[in-house]
Amino acid sequence: MRSKEKVKVPENLLSFLKEKDTFFIATHINPDGDAFGSALALSMALETLGKHTVVYERDSVPAFYRFLPGHERFINSISNLKSQISNLILLDCNTPERAGIEGMKFEYSAVIDHHKTEKDFGDIKWVEPDAAATGLMLFYLIKALGIPITKEIAINLYCAIAIDTGTFRYNNTTAEVLQVSAELIEAGASPAYISHNLYETWSRGRFALLIAALNTLEIRDDVAIIFVTQEMYQKTGAEPADTENFPNFPRMMKDIKVTALFRELDNNYWKVSLRSKGDMNVAKIAALFDGGGHENAAGYRIRADLKSAQETLLQAIPQKATV
Amino acid sequence: MRSKEKVKVPENLLSFLKEKDTFFIATHINPDGDAFGSALALSMALETLGKHTVVYERDSVPAFYRFLPGHERFINSISNLKSQISNLILLDCNTPERAGIEGMKFEYSAVIDHHKTEKDFGDIKWVEPDAAATGLMLFYLIKALGIPITKEIAINLYCAIAIDTGTFRYNNTTAEVLQVSAELIEAGASPAYISHNLYETWSRGRFALLIAALNTLEIRDDVAIIFVTQEMYQKTGAEPADTENFPNFPRMMKDIKVTALFRELDNNYWKVSLRSKGDMNVAKIAALFDGGGHENAAGYRIRADLKSAQETLLQAIPQKATV
Repeated sequence: MRSKEKVKVPENLLSFLKEKDTFFIATHINPDGDAFGSALALSMALETLGKHTVVYERDSVPAFYRFLPGHERFINSISNLKSQISNLILLDCNTPERAGIEGMKFEYSAVIDHHKTEKDFGDIKWVEPDAAATGLMLFYLIKALGIPITKEIAINLYCAIAIDTGTFRYNNTTAEVLQVSAELIEAGASPAYISHNLYETWSRGRFALLIAALNTLEIRDDVAIIFVTQEMYQKTGAEPADTENFPNFPRMMKDIKVTALFRELDNNYWKVSLRSKGDMNVAKIAALFDGGGHENAAGYRIRADLKSAQETLLQAIPQKATV
Repeated sequence: MRSKEKVKVPENLLSFLKEKDTFFIATHINPDGDAFGSALALSMALETLGKHTVVYERDSVPAFYRFLPGHERFINSISNLKSQISNLILLDCNTPERAGIEGMKFEYSAVIDHHKTEKDFGDIKWVEPDAAATGLMLFYLIKALGIPITKEIAINLYCAIAIDTGTFRYNNTTAEVLQVSAELIEAGASPAYISHNLYETWSRGRFALLIAALNTLEIRDDVAIIFVTQEMYQKTGAEPADTENFPNFPRMMKDIKVTALFRELDNNYWKVSLRSKGDMNVAKIAALFDGGGHENAAGYRIRADLKSAQETLLQAIPQKATV
């Protein structure tokens, strides 16, 4: 979204939200800050209008997102729902499958998302592929509904925008993104508090594992490789989920185009996470090993000893990555 | 500075800049993005008014700041100056000593800074300790002079603000900081380009030095200490300026309140950089050792062997930091 081209909220979406009384708000599996923050902000906003909402996320809320006001609203099981809710709002994704709710039936459904539409779903579709975050779209939606942005809503929306813009570092960071975020600060969101919770709450074990992983760094041309073994988890007390953003560290080097993290799943069995910069397409490399992902973030699994697994990857990179 | 309390530029500073024709712009030694960006932006702005400026920095511009438009303006020797310049502007510091120009004579001097005044220097003093960055003050100054913010000026000011707010993560990140940064984006600054240059253009030597420094990590209660020796510079080919944000890495751990980086200047002579979170005031600790800085970022120098220097610091922290 270019700055100053403010988002237009569809009238039929506003009518839907005003007229109905009960909403089932769902977001995507493997959720991130935009999914969590958007869902909570919308739930809170609708409840100030006297609506009833149920907020569903198949996966549970990780510890480091539990600073979000209202995070306890999330349910990850529908078996205890007292009554059938007929109105679905799908957030930050646009198919029931992405939310893990493909088995559920609704009378009406609305999609609010900034990802390109995968297939035709939803009676009301509000999809803005150029918006930096679903949280940004919700900011305009909540204002269009005449609902005040409370401190709790502001924190959730700020987190949503922060996560999807790399806290204002990715190329979707427009003047508008900063203007909206400034309004959220005025409404009570604290950038330092939110950043602290997102980026400065590592355990000592996780940090020790990062240092151990960085000590394995090997650079071959413009490819950086690090690895984590089962023994390293044991020594540091960290766990596989702790390695999530480890590949971002070698990325700091200017002439590194691809970073690979090899994680030992079992003896001679490795999970490989690839990250790339610019037009280096790692999804194509992962596909060679029956893996998948996006252009700049992909992965696969391989049964081999570490050295062979690394060599196979290095051989695959030059021929495919820049295709 | 609280949001909406816009900065007032002193009238006598505006008159000084309008009436004089030639300026010697100097900033502090061991410069950072706020020092470089502010000095370049002011030089460019004054030259659009037809003024002549000389931009002085005792230390040379590190490679990763050479994306700043106009960085080649910096001189670090005054021996080739063709004529005596009688008007000094001291930026992002407030004593000639901090800029390494204590031997030079000027007829008039102006100080523009957001650090607390150390001593009474300057015919004109514009010091705003609550401003997030000197670059933020210059934004208002340049506008008050009626000078358009060009793309080149915008990039320099954005970099200045980004560095001093941890790219919008520190608690000096106010709504105003984001509003001004949004205006700088509209004027041509690209957040992704600037962030890439600031955070993803490390040399391999710099990254190797980071790993070496992290391998020295020692944690005592909620204090993390790392160090860098002359030998480590030699082994990695990195230099002191490369350590700029090293203390930010141990900060990622949730229960670390203070991070200290000890850099070897000479045999048994150390430069100590302190970073803290929240209300842990490291400026007070630095002051105990005749150093200075801000609440969350301060430093000092100490003549001692490493072990004694570290112990002295550890003893100083509990009794002063939370005062």
